[in-house]
This record gives sequence, C-alpha cells and structure tokens, in this order.
Amino acid sequence: MSPVNNHYAVILCGGSGTRLWPLSRTFRPKQLLALNGEQSLLQQTANRLKRYVKPANLYTVTHDDHKFEVKGQLADLIPEALANVLAEPCAKNTLPAIAWATHQIYLKDQSALIGVFASDHAIDNEEAFLTAWKAAEEVASDDYLVLLGIKPHEPATGYGYIKPTNTLLQGNSLPVYEVAQFVEKPDLAKAEQFVSDGYLWNSGMFVFKANVFMQMLSQHQPEIFKVITNISNDSLIDDYTNLPSISMDYGLAEVLVKHNEKVAVVPVDMAWSDLGSWDSIYTRHKKDQNGNVLHGNTIGVDTSNSLIWSETGMLATLGLENVVIIQTPDATLVCDRSRTEDIKTLVAEIKQKSPQLTEIHQTVQRPWGSYTVLEECQNFKIKRIVVNPGASLSMQMHKHRSEHWVVVSGTATITINEIEYTLQENQSTYIPKTHKHRLANNADKPLSIIEVQCGEYVGEDDIVRFEDTYGRCN
Amino acid sequence: MSPVNNHYAVILCGGSGTRLWPLSRTFRPKQLLALNGEQSLLQQTANRLKRYVKPANLYTVTHDDHKFEVKGQLADLIPEALANVLAEPCAKNTLPAIAWATHQIYLKDQSALIGVFASDHAIDNEEAFLTAWKAAEEVASDDYLVLLGIKPHEPATGYGYIKPTNTLLQGNSLPVYEVAQFVEKPDLAKAEQFVSDGYLWNSGMFVFKANVFMQMLSQHQPEIFKVITNISNDSLIDDYTNLPSISMDYGLAEVLVKHNEKVAVVPVDMAWSDLGSWDSIYTRHKKDQNGNVLHGNTIGVDTSNSLIWSETGMLATLGLENVVIIQTPDATLVCDRSRTEDIKTLVAEIKQKSPQLTEIHQTVQRPWGSYTVLEECQNFKIKRIVVNPGASLSMQMHKHRSEHWVVVSGTATITINEIEYTLQENQSTYIPKTHKHRLANNADKPLSIIEVQCGEYVGEDDIVRFEDTYGRCN
Repeated sequence: MSPVNNHYAVILCGGSGTRLWPLSRTFRPKQLLALNGEQSLLQQTANRLKRYVKPANLYTVTHDDHKFEVKGQLADLIPEALANVLAEPCAKNTLPAIAWATHQIYLKDQSALIGVFASDHAIDNEEAFLTAWKAAEEVASDDYLVLLGIKPHEPATGYGYIKPTNTLLQGNSLPVYEVAQFVEKPDLAKAEQFVSDGYLWNSGMFVFKANVFMQMLSQHQPEIFKVITNISNDSLIDDYTNLPSISMDYGLAEVLVKHNEKVAVVPVDMAWSDLGSWDSIYTRHKKDQNGNVLHGNTIGVDTSNSLIWSETGMLATLGLENVVIIQTPDATLVCDRSRTEDIKTLVAEIKQKSPQLTEIHQTVQRPWGSYTVLEECQNFKIKRIVVNPGASLSMQMHKHRSEHWVVVSGTATITINEIEYTLQENQSTYIPKTHKHRLANNADKPLSIIEVQCGEYVGEDDIVRFEDTYGRCN
Repeated sequence: MSPVNNHYAVILCGGSGTRLWPLSRTFRPKQLLALNGEQSLLQQTANRLKRYVKPANLYTVTHDDHKFEVKGQLADLIPEALANVLAEPCAKNTLPAIAWATHQIYLKDQSALIGVFASDHAIDNEEAFLTAWKAAEEVASDDYLVLLGIKPHEPATGYGYIKPTNTLLQGNSLPVYEVAQFVEKPDLAKAEQFVSDGYLWNSGMFVFKANVFMQMLSQHQPEIFKVITNISNDSLIDDYTNLPSISMDYGLAEVLVKHNEKVAVVPVDMAWSDLGSWDSIYTRHKKDQNGNVLHGNTIGVDTSNSLIWSETGMLATLGLENVVIIQTPDATLVCDRSRTEDIKTLVAEIKQKSPQLTEIHQTVQRPWGSYTVLEECQNFKIKRIVVNPGASLSMQMHKHRSEHWVVVSGTATITINEIEYTLQENQSTYIPKTHKHRLANNADKPLSIIEVQCGEYVGEDDIVRFEDTYGRCN
C-alpha cells in the first residue's frame, strides 16, 4: 500500500483543550505536546498519514494562534505539507474546518478521496488503521460518507455511539456497514446495552470523495457551502466570523442519516485513544513495578498506580495511591485519578482567578523561537530568549521599558535605530526605551540572550512593530 | 511578673530538621521559618521569653551556618540579645550546647536561674507557660534540675515520657513533682498506659541554677565540663570537634535520676506542640469550612481536610482528602496526611539523588541580604541579588566567570579593582573574570540587581575573598 495521487488527508488541528491542564494551555494545546515520546501528537499523526498519502496531499487546519508552531512542528518532518496549513481566524467547530480544507482539495482534484483525522489521538496499531482507511475508501468511492467506528472495549460514557446496520462490504477487506443512527454520549446502563448490541464509538474520523462532500454540503448546509466556496485571503476574517459553529457529526453526518442518504461505518480495533484525560494518558503509558507512570524529576516512597509528571523541579511523593500529579514551572495539578474527567470545573475556576495560567506557559513559542519569563515584578522582568538560526524578531519599540541584553550563547545581530552590530557570548548591550531595535540570529546555531526589562510598565502589549518577517505588524 | 536580673533564658537554635521538607532545609531549618504567622518560630520564642527575662539575659546557641540569619531575625526584635548568640562550629546534640551557654552565664552570675527552651516549638497559652517556668524556678532555687512536662492529651508515640513521683511543691503555684523515671518513646499500648498513669511528655525544657548545673556536669560529664570551661575563640573548632554528641536528657537528666539526685518536673497544659511534622502544622492551623489549611496561591475543588501550601506558582487540587502538599520553587511534596511522620525515608532518598534540595532553597540568605537563582545552565547562571541597606558583599574575584549586573531597584556602589562608582536603577555594568570587585548598598533602601554570570564554570565555589565585613575570608 503506497501513496496514491488522489488520496488526501486532512488533519484537524484546532483543539484548544483544557483537559490536560496544566500541560495543555490555550496557546499550547494537546496536539502540540509530546505526551508519549519525543514527537508531538500532531507529528505522530502526520507520520502515520504520510504512509498512505503523498506529503503534498496532507492538509492541516489549525487556529491562527497555533499556525507558527504547527508549521514549526511539520517543517522537518514533512516540509511539503507546509503550503497546505490552513489557519482559521476563529474556531468554528469541525464542519467549517473540514469544508474549507475539502474545498481547497476539490479545486485541485474533484474526485480526491479524502480522509479526515484528529491531530491529537493515539493509535498504536497503525496497520489496523490503514486497513480500515482503505476499506473506508472503497465504500467512499461509491459516494458514501464513511466513518471509522471504534470497537468498544468497555461501556464508556464519554463518547458518542454509532449504530451499524446492513452490511455494505464483506470480503478481503473489513466489513463495512450502513449507519442506522448516531447516539449522543450515553449513561452507563445505555452504554452497556450499546456495547452488547454491537454499537461503535464515534472517533470523529471520516472518509469521503471531495465532490460528494461538496454536493452534500451544498444541499444540507448551503450557507457554509456558500462562504467556503467564496473564501479569499482578503475576506477570510469576515467570512469565518460569519460561519456558524457546528460539528461535522451534527451538521452533516446525522442530517444525512436522517435523510436516508449514504453514510457508512468501518468497525476498527486499532488500540485507539482520544487521550481525553490524564487518566487516559496514565492508562496508555507503560507502568513501573508499582503501577506508576513517572516523567521527569520524581521520587516516590509507597506510591502506587499513579501518574507523577514533573516538567520542572523535584516532585516527591509519600503514601499515595491512584493520584495524578502534573507539575509545570508555574502551576501544579494534584488530582484523584478517578476525577480527571472533572478537570474542566477546576480549570474554569483557575480561568477566573488567573486566566494567563490557562492560556500560556512560562515558555512561549514564537515564530522566531521562544521566550521564557524567569521573573516578573512590577518594574522589571527577566526573560531568556532563544532565537532560531536565520530568524529575527520584528523591528520594534517600547514606550515604557528599556532592555538590557546579555548574550549567553551564539551570536546576536542587533539593530538599534539605523546601526547594526553583532555581539558574542558574554557581551551585552542596552536598548533605551523609545528606540527602534531588532534582534536577529544570522548564525547557524541557536542564539540565547538574557533580557532584563526595566521600566514603569513591563507588559507584553507595550510593543510597536515596524517590520516583521511573520506579518505581525497589523 | 517582670524581668528580674538573675533570670536568664537559653534558646536552643541548633535544629537542622528535615521533617518539614521541602520548606525546611539544612541551611534554613524549621526555627527560621514563619509557619504560623509573620514571625519565625525563633522570633516567637524570643518574644515569649523576653516577657520574663531582660533582653540582655537571652542567650541563643545555634550552628555557625545559621549565625547570620539568627542574628538577622533577632536584630529588630531584641538587639540586646545579639551579643549572646553562640555559634557552634558543629552540632553535638543538646548537652554541649546547654553546657556552653550555661558556663557563659555562670561566668557573669553563678547563681543565675536559667531556663532552656527549644526555638522551634509552638506554645499558644503563654500565661500557663510563664506560670510553669516560675514554679520551676522556685524548685530550681532549691538546687533541683527541673523539667517542664507536658500534660498529654493523647497517647502519642512520638515523645519520651516522664514518670512523676513525690510532690515537692503544692500551693499557690503549680504542683511540682520529683522525677521517678524517664521513658523512651513508647509503643501505642504503653503510651495509653502512661497517659492513664499520669506520666508527662518530655518537652526538652529545663530550668536550673547555673552553679548547680556546673556542679552536676563536673560530676557526671567531667570531659564535657573540662572542654566547656576552657573553651576559647582561638580553639573553638578543635574544642567542639572533640566533644561527644549527647543529649541533655541522656547525658545528664537520666543519669541524675539513676543516682537519686535532685530532678523535678512541673506539669503544664499550655497548648504546646513541637511542630514535628506537617500533620502537626495542619492540626494547629485554623481550617476553612472544608477542613483545609490553605497557604499561598491555591485553588481546590472537592478537596477536604488537607494542608495545601504553595510558596510559588498555582497549586490546584481536585478530588482529594487528607493530603499534605507543599510546593516550593524547586521541589514539591505530596503526601498522605497520615504518613507525614515517615518523611525522613523520603528525604534520605532525595539526599542521595539531589543533595542540594535538602540543603538550600533557591533563595539563599546571606549576612548582607539574599540571592535567588533564577536559572542555571552549564555556562551561565542568573541571580537576583538583594543587598540590605548599609551592607556589602566581600571584595572578591572569580577565576572562571564574568558577571553582568543590572540594577533593577536602589543604588549600587561598585568597586572594580581600585575604582569605585555608583549605578542607579536601569543602569548596568560588567565585571570581567579575574577582576577584584565589590558590591555595596550605601543607601537606605534595599538594592536589587540582576546578575548574569557567563563562563566555562559557574559554581558557587569559584570565589576568592579578599576582604569581608563578616569575617568570611578564611
């Protein structure tokens, strides 16, 4: 099974989940995190998909806030996919995202066979996944909208269920069924009944032909169809703002079933998880002899069946069972493992009290590299700034703060007003407030500087940008 | 009851406890922490004692490592006591410490009435304490070694017990008994028996006459007597190193009882705690409506009967009961509340893996102020340095690192080689490696600077001191 020209894949990379707080934040959602290895979930997804589609046939839809980091994560892995990253100016649930990507592909190839996948799910059995995808394509070729349905191992109450009916395909490949009904997340009793009746979990993965999808959209969601087919760079923000926020399930798949149109499901058993809670992260990781999943700097005495995760200092535990502890530089979560589904309540309270803790980390990714706030007081702030080789910050100016820069590794190219000069390790410079300046790394290894900001106001919004490689002047 | 000339108090300030890790560290032990209010336990102890002794009659014995911080804590509160801070070059348990302080007092006033008290206990009922002290002095005047014995409220297994016998004093003041026997920490069954038999907890508080103590010491611990009575500044380190490490209970009180000499106990009920574990801290603090003790930046959902303490970032909890969580900038403890007595095992493991985490905090106290390590890498380190008004660091030099200093508040007086100059807020300077330099604060408000160290080695031991206000050149 090798990549074929008319096979396409769309990665939905729009999640801004809070369910894995404090590791996931609004500006660093789950799909961008490396939770089970070196690669992020997005990177793992891209790697899995490029086994079946050509790199240039891989589309990614993400929020504009995450565009640079998504591109950064795909850059080394699958550079051909960078041109196909679509950045939504605002989140409108899955249907508009799928519609936009599908229409872009449709403009290239009306009969494209498109698979749509989440960026933040884990699939351990890739062969089973690819076999199911292929089976789904067979039926999609016959103008069906096809879902991948997960064979349930337990009566989960956190997923929607799909009721299969008539067999469409039964041969060398997997069986494929028509969909009789979509069912919302059930209670436990119903879930048990569903499992024994052969219902499947709705994984949110779809396969269809581009022209079939566009036809279905035009018929059942003419408003979205109209906006998406007329979208342009100039009007993107307005167009998107006017779209309804609606899911693919609710906005299209369920409508089709109600109208007895062609909707099918492929049952698949591929060791899948939506990694939707810390408990599901715990469940999938390898445990030590005490049933613990440990990450980072931890020491435990009489600690068992727990997820103990430190991104920073020492995390020491004594006499604990079934807990989840996640320590980051600015926030720690301690939670009973049976309660990880209820984290939304907690995060809502934190959002009230300290909103920035739900939005950004102490280390913030930027298109040119990253910065880490080491300390912030009323009249000064200290940052470590890392600039990638060849990258530069915008030409900028601050009204209320001066900046002291010390190069701690690499070579900095600095422009103040019209003058450009370079600094090596252990050299420093001073940027008085109101002076136009730019920091760049023209060398081939990363540049690290320590910045001490002094002034009566040191907020991030005290910045006037004059010129920016990344189009952030407006 | 007002201070009397021949009343003296000795504060034992030598603990280097690990039982309140990660808040207590070797170089910042429990008695120096503010655990139940604005003042440290040492400061609370000094305040309590100065109600009954003249400030100049208050002696403190501490480890040399803690000398500057002990003096710093006493400076505003009771400056007359600064001259009487005795710094032990090494810890030798309580008997040598008490003997040294007693001998110093004896040299001034042979008939001094001395009370010896721990620096790290909590006593809520100060009137009961003072009444017991006074009763103890009455009996001590009759040449007894007198202990304060705590009336037990529960069959605790963590304390030694004192068995009282014949009544010595029963009148307007409290009853006082002769001591029949000292008993080691019992098991629960024995403890229950002891409580019902009227035994008392041994609190480690003693009252005696100076000359009586010296006589007892000379007879039963002639070796310690000889060293202590010949101690001098010149030979202090050698003298102390040769002393045996032995407690007052084991080395003197128990020996006296065995020889049927004069040992007495005053029973007292004064809401006392040795604050020997996080659970005892929890027990003494006021709880909120969920039975929680909260400190610092915390948010809890469905969390009850717990001690949740953050010295730094957000600490968020969900679905927990009976836990202790202590978060500091470089280490977090999460512990079942019933297991806080077992923390020694955990700290021993941490000492193996990361010894510095049991020794110092990220903020380190110095005689001139403090420094906080904001970040440390192989070739650079960033510190925030706070210099007290009128204080100065030593004239020093580093072989392997250069330093960049940015003043973020106050005025710095800087000497490099022979040149002295001042820097104001938002000014910076550079100290090349191998250059002699000194940082001082000649102004009347604190000075804060950010220091960025660059070099192939940035360890604290790369320092050559030429001149130091605090005698740290050797």
